[in-house]
Amino acid sequence: MNGQLTIVGLGPGPEAWITPAADAAIAAADTVLGYSQYVQRLKPRVGQIIEASDNREELARAERALALASSGMHVALVSGGDPGVFAMAAAVFEAVEKNPDAARDVDIRIEPGVTAMLAAAARIGAPLGHDFCAISLSDNLKPWATIERRLRLAAEADFVIALYNPASKARPEQIRNAFAILSTCRAPETLVIFARAIGRSDESIDVTTLAEAADVACDMRTLVIVGSAATRMIHCGENRIWVYTPRSARDD
Amino acid sequence: MNGQLTIVGLGPGPEAWITPAADAAIAAADTVLGYSQYVQRLKPRVGQIIEASDNREELARAERALALASSGMHVALVSGGDPGVFAMAAAVFEAVEKNPDAARDVDIRIEPGVTAMLAAAARIGAPLGHDFCAISLSDNLKPWATIERRLRLAAEADFVIALYNPASKARPEQIRNAFAILSTCRAPETLVIFARAIGRSDESIDVTTLAEAADVACDMRTLVIVGSAATRMIHCGENRIWVYTPRSARDD
Repeated sequence: MNGQLTIVGLGPGPEAWITPAADAAIAAADTVLGYSQYVQRLKPRVGQIIEASDNREELARAERALALASSGMHVALVSGGDPGVFAMAAAVFEAVEKNPDAARDVDIRIEPGVTAMLAAAARIGAPLGHDFCAISLSDNLKPWATIERRLRLAAEADFVIALYNPASKARPEQIRNAFAILSTCRAPETLVIFARAIGRSDESIDVTTLAEAADVACDMRTLVIVGSAATRMIHCGENRIWVYTPRSARDD
Repeated sequence: MNGQLTIVGLGPGPEAWITPAADAAIAAADTVLGYSQYVQRLKPRVGQIIEASDNREELARAERALALASSGMHVALVSGGDPGVFAMAAAVFEAVEKNPDAARDVDIRIEPGVTAMLAAAARIGAPLGHDFCAISLSDNLKPWATIERRLRLAAEADFVIALYNPASKARPEQIRNAFAILSTCRAPETLVIFARAIGRSDESIDVTTLAEAADVACDMRTLVIVGSAATRMIHCGENRIWVYTPRSARDD
């Protein structure tokens, strides 16, 4: 019997944001693998094996998932958000490329999910309503010089910029470095959104400007969105603010 | 009674890709508004009003939704994919800004969805596995010069590039112009993915190179992804190909 490996996006957190297709893929699996924080959200059915691992072991987890599937099991490998955006799907294909024989008879599928920037944007309006980019600030896997170059060009292109993995205990200063780079070509009043743990009970969202952004606390559960020159804030009713980027760029 | 307006992402097509939260928002609405192609997918419950409109009337539809909600109704305004990505959410906030009084007592919410590039990426592997950008090629609302500039800078930054609205009957040549611009700073062997109607019964996906891309037919139901220099194709089993962008950029 051929095995199956489905890489499943769980969305940003709540069950109401998990697609029925993702749910079905998890329910059909013999074994579910994932970072402990993600698999803890699941309710294993009788007979199902759940294997939690550490966040930093992405390639090892991908190889393990591939090996189990290769032995004939139906494996679901879960990922927060969308598995294709700074997540497990790329790690699986790295494992496939490294060891094509392990993947030969495995039916690989990917179930997309709501990635963090979409959930963050939905909470505050429509900041991603016009051309945008997504950059991971983690320099575990790429040189900081590459990140810096992309930030400069993205600012020059006037993209809205979503920053994934903006900070960690090991590198709290990176997001401030990123703001400093962006400040060289973006106005100080550029809007910056800090969306923390969106979809969880302790979610929060703050809007500030590029001039003030370095003072805002930021951790690995935060997604940062830096507006383009066109991104604007509007007040609605008494206490509500919204941030959006108009569809039109006629005024560039 | 205060009205409610929820801007709902339906995902790329199939019901299995609509989140439970999006489903619930539609079920709770008195009136559902949307482009005819999208509202045709819905199954109205007894007593629910469905109002279909033309694709090009986004601002008028947003104003209509706001006016109905302002009169106390619970309105769901549906959008394909994610409502915040080149879709209805920005149009609603344009309408709010134009007429803040209409929005004063309306409870506005946004329900995120799976946007087209995530579904397309899931079908072919993990092309968005590293830093990427999303650009709409529609010049209805922005000058072509702005699009051209962003394409050049995105190519220079070596982003993976997702192209939304790549072509229409009115402007079949724009995607070819985009490929020509990208070819000035990207290698001819750069991988290009044409993902058409993903999630529908007639979906198709083709992988080619930047050198050959101009020859591939493309319409408004197509999402194009242009790889970065690191994006690679792997063969798996007898007939399966996958395209992915490694998480690591060490070899830049």
